[in-house]
Amino acid sequence: MLRLYDSLISGNGYKARWMLMRLSLPFERVELDIDKGETRTPAFLAMNPNGRVPLLQIAQGDWLAESNAILCYLADGTPYLPTDRRQRAAVMQWLFFEQYSHEPNIATTRHWIAHELLTDERRAQLPGKIQAGYAALDVMERQLTRQKYFVGGRLTVADVALYAYTHVAHEGNFDLGKYPAVRDWIARFAAEPGYFPITAEVGTAVTWSDAQKQAPRP
Amino acid sequence: MLRLYDSLISGNGYKARWMLMRLSLPFERVELDIDKGETRTPAFLAMNPNGRVPLLQIAQGDWLAESNAILCYLADGTPYLPTDRRQRAAVMQWLFFEQYSHEPNIATTRHWIAHELLTDERRAQLPGKIQAGYAALDVMERQLTRQKYFVGGRLTVADVALYAYTHVAHEGNFDLGKYPAVRDWIARFAAEPGYFPITAEVGTAVTWSDAQKQAPRP
Repeated sequence: MLRLYDSLISGNGYKARWMLMRLSLPFERVELDIDKGETRTPAFLAMNPNGRVPLLQIAQGDWLAESNAILCYLADGTPYLPTDRRQRAAVMQWLFFEQYSHEPNIATTRHWIAHELLTDERRAQLPGKIQAGYAALDVMERQLTRQKYFVGGRLTVADVALYAYTHVAHEGNFDLGKYPAVRDWIARFAAEPGYFPITAEVGTAVTWSDAQKQAPRP
Repeated sequence: MLRLYDSLISGNGYKARWMLMRLSLPFERVELDIDKGETRTPAFLAMNPNGRVPLLQIAQGDWLAESNAILCYLADGTPYLPTDRRQRAAVMQWLFFEQYSHEPNIATTRHWIAHELLTDERRAQLPGKIQAGYAALDVMERQLTRQKYFVGGRLTVADVALYAYTHVAHEGNFDLGKYPAVRDWIARFAAEPGYFPITAEVGTAVTWSDAQKQAPRP
């Protein structure tokens, strides 16, 4: 069975959860505490040397990292990842936009603020991250003013990836007041059948302690 | 003809140039001055609202942004992007790793140092970026100790993406002394037929001024 190493506070994890649920793929879910460093333990680093969740265990000893790579893997062969070369490239464009221009600003700001992790060094970075976060929202607003979804007029993994942290941007004090097209798209996404909120327990729970008893390949 | 909006100092641009040359695709190249803000002009933002190079013009009025999306588009249907679902996902994992964990640290440090763009705010971020850059190199070293290329034992777009800024990491004062597998892989990449350095003029030159005369779709 697929197993997702995850954290319910993570929008990157939510992307994987959402796709697994939407495709009705049975999966086990292992909750890790990021703030306690559980993704930086030797046991976890043996599975993902980059020390991050989500991490999808595809088979015993076979792990896939990077939320957007997990989305592409799960969606491959489904309508959520177009087969047309140009449309697929457009989906990729938005996935890389999300990881480079959106997540490091909007998600990181949310993480620092909502979890009270602001240090002096981080506080100094905040104005830059807030400005870059709004710049990313500007780019999204422009696209969503022209079309209902990011690519090809239908919901794809590009929407899933961008929804993850946009819909909780207010937890990082981002104000979506100026972004009516983004707000409409958020409402459209939340009206999808089977919708569940970011913190909902989904999948079959497996504890991190139990997961570690199945020693990973060193 | 394909047209690449580009900057010769950009490793992200180099990825696209390398792939175009390797696939013997004729293309025009438009050089922009990032430091002078040429990618933030209204004319450029009309093509890429996110204001970044590289940008690939696929047809009149049709532009593809994000270097790794450009790589995927160009490599689609070639051996540089595997068709096997699991291998393709592994390539995606390394492409997202590159944009999230590698480029913002190694490329940004290089850009600030090599172009003398260090402000007080940036100087404060430097220790974190240097540490995260070395962490990314650690992850690469571990993978390249096990296999000659990142995915499937052959050169793919994952290698192209990671080569771009790794091979000029020393320009950001990164020391590759501790990374013999990375150094061997760099040497292997540079021995590829048709290799050219990052700053080499390739493609057919078109000036930014001439390019703007062909007014883009608003």
